[in-house]
Amino acid sequence: MNQLDKKSEAWSALFSEPMSDLVKRYTASVFFDKRLWKADIEGSLAHASMLAAQKIIGDSDLAAIRQGMAQITQEIESGQFEWKLDLEDVHLNIEARLTQLVGDAGKRLHTGRSRNDQVATDVRLWLRGEIDLIAVLLVDLQKSLLALAEKNVDVILPGFTHLQVAQPVSFGHHMLAYVEMFARDADRMADVRKRMNRLPLGAAALAGTSYPLDRESVAKALGMDGICENSLDAVSDRDFAIEFTSAAAIAMVHISRLSEELVIWMSQNFSFIQIADRFTTGSSIMPQKKNPDVAELARGKSGRVVGHLVGLITLMKGQPLAYNKDNQEDKEPLFDTVDTLKDTLRIFADMMGGITVRPEAMEKAALRGYATATDLADYLVKKGLPFRDAHEIVAHAVKEATSHNCDLSELPLAVLQKFNAAIDKDVYDVLSLRGSLNARNVTGGTAPAQVRLQLAKHHARLA
Amino acid sequence: MNQLDKKSEAWSALFSEPMSDLVKRYTASVFFDKRLWKADIEGSLAHASMLAAQKIIGDSDLAAIRQGMAQITQEIESGQFEWKLDLEDVHLNIEARLTQLVGDAGKRLHTGRSRNDQVATDVRLWLRGEIDLIAVLLVDLQKSLLALAEKNVDVILPGFTHLQVAQPVSFGHHMLAYVEMFARDADRMADVRKRMNRLPLGAAALAGTSYPLDRESVAKALGMDGICENSLDAVSDRDFAIEFTSAAAIAMVHISRLSEELVIWMSQNFSFIQIADRFTTGSSIMPQKKNPDVAELARGKSGRVVGHLVGLITLMKGQPLAYNKDNQEDKEPLFDTVDTLKDTLRIFADMMGGITVRPEAMEKAALRGYATATDLADYLVKKGLPFRDAHEIVAHAVKEATSHNCDLSELPLAVLQKFNAAIDKDVYDVLSLRGSLNARNVTGGTAPAQVRLQLAKHHARLA
Amino acid sequence: MNQLDKKSEAWSALFSEPMSDLVKRYTASVFFDKRLWKADIEGSLAHASMLAAQKIIGDSDLAAIRQGMAQITQEIESGQFEWKLDLEDVHLNIEARLTQLVGDAGKRLHTGRSRNDQVATDVRLWLRGEIDLIAVLLVDLQKSLLALAEKNVDVILPGFTHLQVAQPVSFGHHMLAYVEMFARDADRMADVRKRMNRLPLGAAALAGTSYPLDRESVAKALGMDGICENSLDAVSDRDFAIEFTSAAAIAMVHISRLSEELVIWMSQNFSFIQIADRFTTGSSIMPQKKNPDVAELARGKSGRVVGHLVGLITLMKGQPLAYNKDNQEDKEPLFDTVDTLKDTLRIFADMMGGITVRPEAMEKAALRGYATATDLADYLVKKGLPFRDAHEIVAHAVKEATSHNCDLSELPLAVLQKFNAAIDKDVYDVLSLRGSLNARNVTGGTAPAQVRLQLAKHHARLA
Amino acid sequence: MNQLDKKSEAWSALFSEPMSDLVKRYTASVFFDKRLWKADIEGSLAHASMLAAQKIIGDSDLAAIRQGMAQITQEIESGQFEWKLDLEDVHLNIEARLTQLVGDAGKRLHTGRSRNDQVATDVRLWLRGEIDLIAVLLVDLQKSLLALAEKNVDVILPGFTHLQVAQPVSFGHHMLAYVEMFARDADRMADVRKRMNRLPLGAAALAGTSYPLDRESVAKALGMDGICENSLDAVSDRDFAIEFTSAAAIAMVHISRLSEELVIWMSQNFSFIQIADRFTTGSSIMPQKKNPDVAELARGKSGRVVGHLVGLITLMKGQPLAYNKDNQEDKEPLFDTVDTLKDTLRIFADMMGGITVRPEAMEKAALRGYATATDLADYLVKKGLPFRDAHEIVAHAVKEATSHNCDLSELPLAVLQKFNAAIDKDVYDVLSLRGSLNARNVTGGTAPAQVRLQLAKHHARLA
Repeated sequence: MNQLDKKSEAWSALFSEPMSDLVKRYTASVFFDKRLWKADIEGSLAHASMLAAQKIIGDSDLAAIRQGMAQITQEIESGQFEWKLDLEDVHLNIEARLTQLVGDAGKRLHTGRSRNDQVATDVRLWLRGEIDLIAVLLVDLQKSLLALAEKNVDVILPGFTHLQVAQPVSFGHHMLAYVEMFARDADRMADVRKRMNRLPLGAAALAGTSYPLDRESVAKALGMDGICENSLDAVSDRDFAIEFTSAAAIAMVHISRLSEELVIWMSQNFSFIQIADRFTTGSSIMPQKKNPDVAELARGKSGRVVGHLVGLITLMKGQPLAYNKDNQEDKEPLFDTVDTLKDTLRIFADMMGGITVRPEAMEKAALRGYATATDLADYLVKKGLPFRDAHEIVAHAVKEATSHNCDLSELPLAVLQKFNAAIDKDVYDVLSLRGSLNARNVTGGTAPAQVRLQLAKHHARLA
Repeated sequence: MNQLDKKSEAWSALFSEPMSDLVKRYTASVFFDKRLWKADIEGSLAHASMLAAQKIIGDSDLAAIRQGMAQITQEIESGQFEWKLDLEDVHLNIEARLTQLVGDAGKRLHTGRSRNDQVATDVRLWLRGEIDLIAVLLVDLQKSLLALAEKNVDVILPGFTHLQVAQPVSFGHHMLAYVEMFARDADRMADVRKRMNRLPLGAAALAGTSYPLDRESVAKALGMDGICENSLDAVSDRDFAIEFTSAAAIAMVHISRLSEELVIWMSQNFSFIQIADRFTTGSSIMPQKKNPDVAELARGKSGRVVGHLVGLITLMKGQPLAYNKDNQEDKEPLFDTVDTLKDTLRIFADMMGGITVRPEAMEKAALRGYATATDLADYLVKKGLPFRDAHEIVAHAVKEATSHNCDLSELPLAVLQKFNAAIDKDVYDVLSLRGSLNARNVTGGTAPAQVRLQLAKHHARLA
Repeated sequence: MNQLDKKSEAWSALFSEPMSDLVKRYTASVFFDKRLWKADIEGSLAHASMLAAQKIIGDSDLAAIRQGMAQITQEIESGQFEWKLDLEDVHLNIEARLTQLVGDAGKRLHTGRSRNDQVATDVRLWLRGEIDLIAVLLVDLQKSLLALAEKNVDVILPGFTHLQVAQPVSFGHHMLAYVEMFARDADRMADVRKRMNRLPLGAAALAGTSYPLDRESVAKALGMDGICENSLDAVSDRDFAIEFTSAAAIAMVHISRLSEELVIWMSQNFSFIQIADRFTTGSSIMPQKKNPDVAELARGKSGRVVGHLVGLITLMKGQPLAYNKDNQEDKEPLFDTVDTLKDTLRIFADMMGGITVRPEAMEKAALRGYATATDLADYLVKKGLPFRDAHEIVAHAVKEATSHNCDLSELPLAVLQKFNAAIDKDVYDVLSLRGSLNARNVTGGTAPAQVRLQLAKHHARLA
Repeated sequence: MNQLDKKSEAWSALFSEPMSDLVKRYTASVFFDKRLWKADIEGSLAHASMLAAQKIIGDSDLAAIRQGMAQITQEIESGQFEWKLDLEDVHLNIEARLTQLVGDAGKRLHTGRSRNDQVATDVRLWLRGEIDLIAVLLVDLQKSLLALAEKNVDVILPGFTHLQVAQPVSFGHHMLAYVEMFARDADRMADVRKRMNRLPLGAAALAGTSYPLDRESVAKALGMDGICENSLDAVSDRDFAIEFTSAAAIAMVHISRLSEELVIWMSQNFSFIQIADRFTTGSSIMPQKKNPDVAELARGKSGRVVGHLVGLITLMKGQPLAYNKDNQEDKEPLFDTVDTLKDTLRIFADMMGGITVRPEAMEKAALRGYATATDLADYLVKKGLPFRDAHEIVAHAVKEATSHNCDLSELPLAVLQKFNAAIDKDVYDVLSLRGSLNARNVTGGTAPAQVRLQLAKHHARLA
């Protein structure tokens, strides 16, 4: 008589024929959603405890369910659990096995719930755990960047805009820019978690249930901050999945920017850094190659996560309430986004520790692009010129230096004075890379003193 | 001598020829970024006040700048300001006019800043204002939905899953599902605002500046919660723009779901609602038509915002630090996202007030799909059957009713008892739509008592 | 001495340490690209034959390679082949095994090629085969739709615009609209194939090779239409993958539109169709449910393919020439797109044959929306009125009918004549659904006579 | 009595109130679709001619329509035409003005058509014209690249994979890789045109029309290759718009790759090229800057077009047949895609002619990365070693050279022979950059002889 026993024959008495094999394979989710098994069992146990506390099922039912679930946990962990396509998904697979093990108690578990609120709960529980792991990984990556920054506060990198030499910056300062980005990524993840950590269970199929459930106690047992207050919304929305994937995509975009820089810096024409051999690969044909594959692959994987974001949004667009089968497609992009982000954060935290900086190459490059031209303009402003006039004067000076193929600091004082008489020999202090660096001593600026202040702040924050 | 005077001849003394006309048009942003003028002036005035307070410019310079900006404000508001393509963007247009008006003081305004930190500041200031407007519009829409919900708490709508009749729900409850969604959208917007409301000014081109700026005071003057702590990050990241557009896209997806339902409900086969004529349009060929154009167009416009989100992410992907010209492309998608979202929220707040509900059509539809079958299963569970067995028994009963083309509640007791002897005449209470509705009296459930509790909560929240 | 033997120790003599385990897992592709094994072997055999013909390797080398590849084929097909993570990808796994089996001949196979041109060749060969399968599936689906159309040429469906009743159409005609779409999808696939079916082999790493290869003969052996004429382009571009995924996304959008209609038509308020039980599923909680899961899931899966399209484009954006590791990310989206599209086409071809049409429900619905109002306007035009005046007259007539809650055809002649005196009793012919249907006898119109002509054309085309 | 006269009061007699102002603005398209005016008039004239030929309207009607349209054309071209929001779109604006000018004949124009088939026709006509312009621009860009290639066939560029020096390539060869890409883009555009160039007119609202139209003659008059064979498909699908935008996005991705290279090549550490001043811009703060803004902006604009592609797909996803208002959103992304692509192609054709190549910088860079290591491996293979063994030997040689900080060609013969005794003094021929370049003389390879062959082919193709 039990519905799950005969699923291979027909969905229920209402159905005149079994699902076609093609349909079974097309609609089954068990091959990917079995990943939710732990959350599914955790949610079921909390549900069962509450059902017993509310006298909806008996204490012996609860005991049987707990015992059955313990065995199922053991079976799954040991790889002995038999996942069945006919049972569609992780939920029915576990429930059917439970019933096999403990009989009627198992059939009572689904009282007052539906797969709609069950899956919504499972996904939230699972994703919450993953967000907590991601939070740790984001801290690890920030710490790895901090360590690299700390070692290189005084190393001068040519700061670029438009990939043209702009102004000298501290390499440590540059690394801290990424720390800021990943800190915001962590913030975003925390916001996703906060909004998501509410309980759908009790919404049942879409309308709530006629059993006297105590939803708040289940929420508490599962460590949630509250319940979903509207049953239709609880089973139908997946905005938390979109929001998470968006936050993940932004983090991957930050990774892609860092990757782009690593690739460029490691190119022979830059040679600003070396990446430890264990993070590089060779070529099947060119024996001289050492390629920054990890950085490139991570840059490529940003596309993957952006794709998942678009997939999830497209999925939800135009869906009427409440649950539609379209939503089953929320899982694979979410799973792959989590895997991609975690793997990438982990490998970057590791790889950034394997980077060797080449200060001479960086400094040489900084000297190649008139990186202190702005300092000369500022010097003139301090002598009383309006900034816009100073800007134009320096342009002339740069033109002169270019024609002599030398740096501004290599122009004789007499030549500089041709452009403005107020220029004196103290100008050479501001024209040096280090002088320029130290001068940018405003909060958030690149002067080593400021960078050290920032390092201290970040260390305190992450402690 | 001044650089801006001669931009049509050459960018600066370094350039041997003027920009080609094609390039001017291709790279100029003034035709769209002039929209930022108010934020630009606001930011400049705060910057100038601080420069004067720090003795970097004189008090008379500040006075001249204030007076010049007052005149420029008047010129722009009255439409007399001449926007020039040669001056590329809103920033240079305003600065050049200022210099024209007040001379050297105008040329001093740009001291200690760059267009890179200036535009980042302008966009944040502008977007903050728009987010505040969006927050109001989201409240308006929620209130409009609350009003509609309040009038229809006791109206029975067939709740659907898979667009198949599932269980009866209160129409008011259904509307409150959307209130939950838009409340989360408002939350997300608040989080975007929180993360974005920090000051880039002082980052200058990318490295900070050598002038003794007081960045905190500028932040305070502009109502910001703090400063961007790393100059490179300040000028180069646009994650706030992506995050905002993602939040907007999610809100539009919610709108698209509501739109889908409005379109379906207004279709003659449903006829669940009427939309006031002022929100509908006719056909150029079919004289009988009244079309729910607004809902359809809003559904379509969700695509537009999703497109902008993808555009912005693609834009940032793989960009090395710090500023690159790619970033100029951040504005148009952002502007259009703001416009689309605001227009759509406004029109929906208005339109939802113009909806007439047809309770008879909804109730008739609910009776068509065995909406109380779950109630019968629950009834049997309360008589002691395990849920899974009860489920199968009811499937048989539905099959019987289908063959007689009648509702479950129309089956005689004797027939029902064939399926399970425990069924008694009190079964007819649970088989009625109203009985089913009232039974779902769990928190978050659709029972009118619960819906009224929720209404009260929402009213308190939005008060 | 051989490089592949020691890959677990170091990539080559140039590397001071082995790849970290994390990096191996992150960068390895063998777990997904092993799917290309057949194409890889096919390509290698063609390459080897040519090398021998050109005397670059000996005939005995060729014989050894052929024999080794035969054994490897057998090992893979029987599941005995051991895929090794250390060997990164399908290419190195097969080559290393070949060398193990046949010694030096195996080491000679890679002469004149690189993994860059090898993988580009493999992917094209594989995708060509899949496109050929998709072409067949698109024909199957069209035939299934034709069969359904043929059975229902005379069935009257209310044609909708804006989901409002517009004009009566033949159900067969409606099905043929989808035949047109899928025919264009097939066309697009053929165009992708045409552009893609060129040989990259011979491009080597990026610059061509110093061996006297005969690329044209390899192209011919592999059934390709020509060679890639520029070596850099050959190894670096993946536009064919984007174009294919775009064509697949468009096909899935067409599927999503058909799905939307099936879901709506099966909703109880429409009840236009029944889908055979084997294509539907039930609910874990609601015993009365029969859900159109396949259609919903397919609609959802359109998001998946759109996501892959975006992922691939994002991947390629901004990549410098020639090959970068980012490109490894091209495979999974491509594989999943192919799988999703094939499964979906197959199941739709099957499911459309399991649809039962309910002509009475459709006809009743058509009568509910003044579907013949345009016919009345056209009638008046034929009596001499300008169309715009006729349109307004009919709007008045519809208003009158609405107020009597009847169809236009149920208004007495006297009433109709109030709106225009030219109306005579022959008006009732044009006001009938069938009359309206038959009247649209223009090419491409919905008159059954036209639909039958179209059916014949399509049958001839697909024969 | 005429419907269009009173649109500001009510859509038609069926409507009890006018559209709200908010709705008018939200749903009106005239401010962007007026761009279609020429196509609209062209289509109307062809329709009118056919109506007259079929005796559906009189010859005097046709004459009046022609005269009215001539005047409207003149009014629009001279900027005197008054576009009215109340009239929603370009179609009603023109029709209303026509009726104002020529009376009843104007009202007869809409006989046998609907805005649904009218707008589908207009968009196709307009887009066809734009595709033809794009085809010309793609030829111009290819020619510009060919010219640059031709001048630099013998210039040696370090070919990169993973942005690491790989093998020497001809700069001309590198440019020809882009010629291949843009040639495929042109091919794709031609395929879009072919599939799109069919006539929707005659489909009317969705079902065809009861007037005896001669659709084939209209198609012929409008230069179309045939008619849309199914009326529902004709008015509802926009796959041609998606396909076009996809082809445009791929072209923009190609542009983004070229842009990335230009930006990198122009960076001081590369200094491979100079871009003429008229294509660069300066900085508001850094006087020394010359930025490759056009390349960066174009790279950014690829995101814009990708966004439009996603917007269009999202728009169509899940739409039931036939026409829905969502489709109005197809226009702006299409218009902006066309503008962006045309502007970008035009400016790149121009800018590539303004590029100065620095052969010494390129050659110096090529020498920095052991670019001829593969040549040494190939040399050993020709001496009888299996490729895999040769590869490993060369890795050792590179290691040795690295430790001496010299190129392979600078290692004494004795040292080279330590790695393999077969090495003789002829090895120095293959170790030179030019020797390596010339050796890659396979079809499609980078040897100057091959590049010249390719140049000739392309010239012939584009002649």
